[in-house]
Order: sequence, then C-alpha cells, then structure tokens
Amino acid sequence: MNEIIKNKACDFVIFGINGDLSKRKLLPSLYYLEKFKYIHNDTNIIGVSRSEFNIKDNINMIKKSLLNFLKEKINNEIWLKFSKRFKFCNLDVYYSDNFIKLKKNINLKNKIIIYYFATPPNTFSYICEGLGKNKINNNNTRIIVEKPLGKNLKSYNYINKIILKYFKEIQVYRIDHYLGKEIILNLLALRFSNILFFSNWNNSIIDSVQITIFEQIGIEGRSEYFNKIGQTRDMIQNHLLQILTIITMAPPLSLNINNINEEKIKILKSLRRIDYKNINENTVIGQYKSGIINNNKVNSYLEEKGINNKSNTETFVAIKANIDNWQWLGVPFYLRTGKRLKKKIAEIVIYFKNLPINLFQKFNKNLLQNKLIIRLYPNEGIEIKILNKLYGLNNNYKLRKTKLNFNFYGKKNIHKPDAYELLILEAMLGNQSLFVSCNEIKESWKWIDLIINGWKKKKIKPIIYKSGTWGPKESDILIEKDGRKWNKYL
Amino acid sequence: MNEIIKNKACDFVIFGINGDLSKRKLLPSLYYLEKFKYIHNDTNIIGVSRSEFNIKDNINMIKKSLLNFLKEKINNEIWLKFSKRFKFCNLDVYYSDNFIKLKKNINLKNKIIIYYFATPPNTFSYICEGLGKNKINNNNTRIIVEKPLGKNLKSYNYINKIILKYFKEIQVYRIDHYLGKEIILNLLALRFSNILFFSNWNNSIIDSVQITIFEQIGIEGRSEYFNKIGQTRDMIQNHLLQILTIITMAPPLSLNINNINEEKIKILKSLRRIDYKNINENTVIGQYKSGIINNNKVNSYLEEKGINNKSNTETFVAIKANIDNWQWLGVPFYLRTGKRLKKKIAEIVIYFKNLPINLFQKFNKNLLQNKLIIRLYPNEGIEIKILNKLYGLNNNYKLRKTKLNFNFYGKKNIHKPDAYELLILEAMLGNQSLFVSCNEIKESWKWIDLIINGWKKKKIKPIIYKSGTWGPKESDILIEKDGRKWNKYL
Repeated sequence: MNEIIKNKACDFVIFGINGDLSKRKLLPSLYYLEKFKYIHNDTNIIGVSRSEFNIKDNINMIKKSLLNFLKEKINNEIWLKFSKRFKFCNLDVYYSDNFIKLKKNINLKNKIIIYYFATPPNTFSYICEGLGKNKINNNNTRIIVEKPLGKNLKSYNYINKIILKYFKEIQVYRIDHYLGKEIILNLLALRFSNILFFSNWNNSIIDSVQITIFEQIGIEGRSEYFNKIGQTRDMIQNHLLQILTIITMAPPLSLNINNINEEKIKILKSLRRIDYKNINENTVIGQYKSGIINNNKVNSYLEEKGINNKSNTETFVAIKANIDNWQWLGVPFYLRTGKRLKKKIAEIVIYFKNLPINLFQKFNKNLLQNKLIIRLYPNEGIEIKILNKLYGLNNNYKLRKTKLNFNFYGKKNIHKPDAYELLILEAMLGNQSLFVSCNEIKESWKWIDLIINGWKKKKIKPIIYKSGTWGPKESDILIEKDGRKWNKYL
Repeated sequence: MNEIIKNKACDFVIFGINGDLSKRKLLPSLYYLEKFKYIHNDTNIIGVSRSEFNIKDNINMIKKSLLNFLKEKINNEIWLKFSKRFKFCNLDVYYSDNFIKLKKNINLKNKIIIYYFATPPNTFSYICEGLGKNKINNNNTRIIVEKPLGKNLKSYNYINKIILKYFKEIQVYRIDHYLGKEIILNLLALRFSNILFFSNWNNSIIDSVQITIFEQIGIEGRSEYFNKIGQTRDMIQNHLLQILTIITMAPPLSLNINNINEEKIKILKSLRRIDYKNINENTVIGQYKSGIINNNKVNSYLEEKGINNKSNTETFVAIKANIDNWQWLGVPFYLRTGKRLKKKIAEIVIYFKNLPINLFQKFNKNLLQNKLIIRLYPNEGIEIKILNKLYGLNNNYKLRKTKLNFNFYGKKNIHKPDAYELLILEAMLGNQSLFVSCNEIKESWKWIDLIINGWKKKKIKPIIYKSGTWGPKESDILIEKDGRKWNKYL
C-alpha cells in the first residue's frame, strides 16, 4: 500500500485555499496522502486566494488547519516535505486576466494540472472562463467541482454548459463525498462478489428499504446558502439518491465508469415521479424550532442568524420513493434527512419480507423481519439481524434476535481514510469512476424539480418540529400508513 | 427459566447406574437439572446395577463421578438435595423375576416412570421382558434407549420388535445426542424463521455441503463393540445422517414430531443408493496406523487391545451422498468421519455457488465462494464467509475474505447445557420431538446396509492412514475429482 504512486506528477491547484472546505477537508487529506506516500515527489500544491496573504501567513494557516483537523499530531518530517510543496497565488477570479499569475506557477506541459474549485458556486463560471481564456485548460488538466451544482435542472444546465465549454466530460470530476466513503464503495463489492447478497436482491424477498441521514447540527452559519437551497436539494438530490442507485442498480457490464453510470441512470429514470398530484402521500417536510440537543438549548431555524423570520425553507424531508422496474416494483424506499435531530445517524436498512408461515407461533407470536443494516454513522459497519433459538433448557423454540456482525476494518486503530483522501487520490490517478456523471445529476434534478414544484404548487409549508426530536410526527405517519415503522434508535 | 417444572414427578430408573454413560453423562446432567431446578421435588432416581454395592458405595460412586465430570465444584446444598433422591436396586436383568425388586421401588400409579437403558445393547431385550412380565410398563412409563440400535436393518428390526412388544412408539425415546446439541436444534430455527436462510436454500445457489466429524481419540477400550461396528455404523448411520436430514428437510407442516419425521424420512428415502456398482466412486474407508497426535505417539488400530491383527474394521469413512429430490438434485453432500485424526472437528460447511460473472477480475482472479459454517467443535458457532472490498487508499476493488460472526451464546461464562441435560429433561416432560423415530432409523439402515454390503461384495479393505493426519489421501481425491476441496483447518 505504501508504494509511491508512479503516476505523473501533478500541480494541484486549490481555488479557495483558506476557505472552510480547504481547511477542514482538503489540507488534512493531502497531508495523509503525503504521510502514506501517495503523492509524487514532484507534485506541487498551489493555493489560490483573493486575500493578499504572504507565504508565511499561508503556511501558518495550513499548519493551523492541520492542528485543528488532523486526527493525530503533526509529524515533523512529513510536515517538512508537505509544506515544501506549496506555492501560493493571490488572484481575484472575477478578472480573467489575473489567471496569467497562475499560469506562471504551473507546468502545463509535463504535469497533470488539477483545479479544485473550493469556492462558492457563483465563482465557477468565472474560474472556468479565466482558465479557458488563458489556455490553461489543455488535455492534461482536470477540474474537481462539488455541490451545489445548481439548484434545479435549469441552473445546473447553465453551470454545466460553462464547464463543458472549457473542459471535456472526462476532465470533470464531480464530487459527491458519499461516494468516497468506504462503506458505500463496499456496497458494490458486496453486492456483486457475493451470491448471498446478489441472489434475490429484489422484490422477491426485499420488503422495503430505509435510508436515513440525520444531523444534530443546524445550518452552522451557512444561512445564505442553505436558505435558498433547503434540505431536499442539499441532501436528497445528491447523497441519498446516490446511495439509492448504488443499492438498487443492476450489475454493470464492467466496472468502467460509463457502464456503472448507465445502470445508475436507469434507476434514476425508473424513479416514480412525485409531483403536485401525489406529493401529499409521498413526502413530508419540516423545519426545526428551538429545543434541547445533548443538554444544550438550541435556537429555532427562524432564529438562526441571517434567516428571514418568514422563511419556509425545509430543514427536514421524508420521501417515499418507488422504482418502477422489474427488480424493484413494489418495494418502497423511505428516504429521510434533517437537521437538529436527536442523534447523528447515517444508515441504510434493508428489510426482508416475512416468511409465509410462522412455524414457531406457539412460542413466538410474530417472527421479526430479517434486516440488513449498512451503517455509516455511528460505528461504521454492516450487520444482519436474524432470529435464532434461545439457548438453554426448556426454551422449546422460543426465538431471539441476534446479529451477524461484520467486522469492517479488522484491526482497530487503523487509519480510516476520509472520503476526500480517497477522492483526491482518485482524481490524481485519473480514475473517474467514483465521481458523478453529468447525466446522473441531470436525471436527479428532473426528479427533485417535480417534487419541489409540487410543494410550491400545493402551497405546502414545512411542519414545525422541535429540535432534538426525530422530526415531525407526520414523518412517522408517512411510513406507518403502509404498516411499517422507521428503524428505531436508542 | 429457573421455575420448577410443574410436571408430574418421575421415578427415573437408570439401568447401569455405575456404567460409563451414567458416570460421564447422566449423573452430571441430572445434577445440573437439579441445580437449575428442573427436577420435580418428588422425583426419585433409582440406580439399577448387577453388582452388590451398598447405598454408601453407590453414593460415593455418584459423588466421584460428579467430581470427575462436572464443569464446576459440587455445591453442598445442591448435593444434599440431589443425593437424597437416590434409591438403589441390585438386580441381574437377565432374570425377569428379579424385576419385582424394582417394582417395589417405583410408584407406577402416580408417577411417570422413565427407564434409561444405560447398559450394553444385548441387555435391551431382557430388560424389556423383565419390565413387561412384571407389568411395570403401563402407559405412565417411558424408555430411553441409545445407539447401537442394531448393526443393520435386520438386527435393528429385531431389537425394535421386542421393544414394541412391550412399549408403544410414543413411549420410546431413542437418543441421538447430536439432536440435543444447541447448534443442531438451532438449525431448524434458523432455517424456518429467517427468510435469508430459507429463500434459495436449495440447488439454485447452494453448490455443495460438507459434514465433518473428526476425532483425535481412538477406540478408547471399546474394542469389542467397535470392531464389530466400525465408523460407518457408529457415526454415519445416526449422527451424520441426522445432521444431513435437518439441513435439507423441507419445512414441516408443524413442529409436531410426526410432521418433522415425515420430512426427515422423505430425505432419507431420496438419498441416492450407493451399492457395489457405484461404491468406488462414492466412498473411501480407512484404518489408522500409528502416528503422532498432540506430540504423543499413538498405536495403530491393529495394536489396540482386543483387536485381531487382521481386522478390516474401518476407523475412517468418507461418502459422497446425493439427495435426488427437487430441492437438492445436483448438490453433493460430502460426509466424513474418523478417529485418530489431526484435530477434533465437528462442523457443517455449506458452499454457495460462484456468481456467473467476476466483475472484479482485474483485481481478483477468482472470486471465492460464499460459505456458511455451522461449527459444533471447536468454538461452537455460526459464521458466514463473504467477500468485501479491502479498505484503504488505492486498493480499487481488491477484495478480501471476511466473516460475519454470529455470537451464539451472547454472554460468556453462561452454562451451556450438555445434550444429555436437554434430552433427559425433554423425556421427563414427555416431549418426543428431539428423539429419533423408528422409521427414521429403518430408512437410514436401508441406505447404510447397501453401502456396507457393497464394500463386502467388492472386497474393499480400509486404506491405512497415519494417525495424526487428515485420513487417507483417497478421501481428498474423492472430492477433488469433482473440482472441490475439503474445508481447510489450520
């Protein structure tokens, strides 16, 4: 694993070097890639920012970020090597002439140039133009962009058009960091390398699926951005739909990105449309009011700094989705995500059907359903809940729940790479398969746009829920009217 | 669990109170049933032996047995209560008149009388006659008998005829102690309460099954008995065929003993016959020579005390069995059992088929088969071997084996009841469902007789294998010619 990548060296350009994404994710991830010797000796990192920091300020900022966000102490030797890679370039991206400064700092001829857009989305078009007009977008270049990529199909198409004016699709790496999470990556491996997970992975024995991403945090100062976007666009359109497609896609012809995308897009196209006509039965939205989380009082959404007190932005959404294809017809997918909830949770729960006969009725009134739980947070892992006989004397066939536990990482204390580490490395290696294709995003916006327009047309306002709860009661009703329940957390 | 059984009190009669089975298994099991308050206050235990011991000698013998075979220290309070239950009766079972002595010691009218035949099989008919002629075989009585029940269909029928002359089938409890093992009991629960184990439990995704019971011990002084019987009759006819039927039987109409037997018998009747015509391809027999086990030199079978040095008795047998029904046609069942082998092992391994496509071929030449291991010894438990992605950076889709572990007992240090505890209690409660029916034994003898006659007819002699190995090489060839391998042990 620790071999030095024998790839071409890169110039890794970060637009927004002193922004939040850079500090929290990119710089620590690059440090770990350095530590584990995945960065080519001749690779440089070029930090771009508008502010007129000098080199010393910038290096200090980087060191401070590592101190704050590494999971370990900074190692001096690694730091020396790492910090020497940096160059800095102050430029205002709104003026394309400025990009000539950047051009001087990169080696377009002999290196792979990776431009990481760690800046607000309204800068994307200016950066693309600056790169294009200065001809620093040749075939050796790649760009990494990240959500929000538009707020609907129309605005996405606009962003995409500008990007594709200066870059070909194979140069564009669209990050959905959920695709860099080990357990999500493992889903494809599990599904397509084990007959036990492959056979009957469909409506013959699967009853329903729940995908939950719950946060305890609120909007964390991102009011301007979040209030325009809301939870549905921020979480469902990307992360939850990505998970949904990975769980349900048919086996691809090969692991080639095009083949995988082909199957994912088929799923997105098979999603039953939810619009103003069926929006009430299939969706619930909510907005948090004040409450208690981890013994601390937290404000309501409307009290958050920068939020208009009449905002109808949803901070919680639950959707019952259906995939109308041969494999999945009849299996509901219950998606839910929200902020200021009781616990931080991210998991997929696959419920299997009940057996037709309860042979053990005399000792067990009901047989509990088998469940497969794929947990991203907390305690990343996979477990299968099954029934078995209660051991011991005179128990006859009293059954009890047990879990088959899948020890995901084997040894403890192993370095668990962050999604960004993996995705940055993949971009350096030119492997696009963990990134999201243009068409996938288009298809997901088509589905999301109808839903959001449905709420507008029906004048549906978010239901107020107390912070520190599991969201509005109506979310429970959404699933309970189908005779099912949300998976319970203690 | 610790409630006192509100059943009728018993008189529990052990023929052969100072024999090996009684000392090793019955007395310790009864002690534990006492400890956990499963024995009715008015239940007595009547020890029958030919020898003229007095009460004190007998009580000492019992205490010594507990000292030797309990997994814990004797508790004084429990011992006081337990030892007071005993009565003793010296009688020679060959003379039916003697049984009048026994009659005086039991309460035929108000109690359940259980006769445990812990004596050699040649005494069974005499005991039955003694009980019958003295009319101490009324409807309140039950008998418990144990292997060997004959050495072929004919001799079994003879024994059975005598038993059924004096007792009805519902009074007869035929022990196969494997049916009292938690993990075997759990097989029915797992199979019929979990759709994950139920769906596709057949030739659609199961490739093959291995059942292995290996011992390190030799014949342990049982030369007279064993040399006539051999490993096939001693282990395959009962334990391995019981396991086989429990793994493969279709769901019974109910948990009623008759419904379960019905399905088990269907499996036995579907076993493809192995006779002199196909005996060579489907069986291997062996006999141990001297060797090293756990660093100790051990003798050959022919050097064992009491064994004729021309004996052709097999101490090892491997059989490839097939079940010619709709569910199992095409799935071979590889059975093997032997003595003086490298390790003590008892397990069932279910191999699943390979997936039709190896999507991960670039990173993994072959995809290993999924396996379900049901282990009786060592480390009782269930595990599923699956493939998953090797975590970490730059691993692409390199896969690795992992196991889903099933924590069978939950808490450690819990009392794990011995099979005899469970079976004695079930007999006291009058629950026959964990015992073997007359017809099951008949069907299994039919299958075994053909095999044993096949060896005779083809003059097949056991292949000599070295003690401390995995048996004769020919056993490997038996499975390897099908392109499969025995499960490996370290």
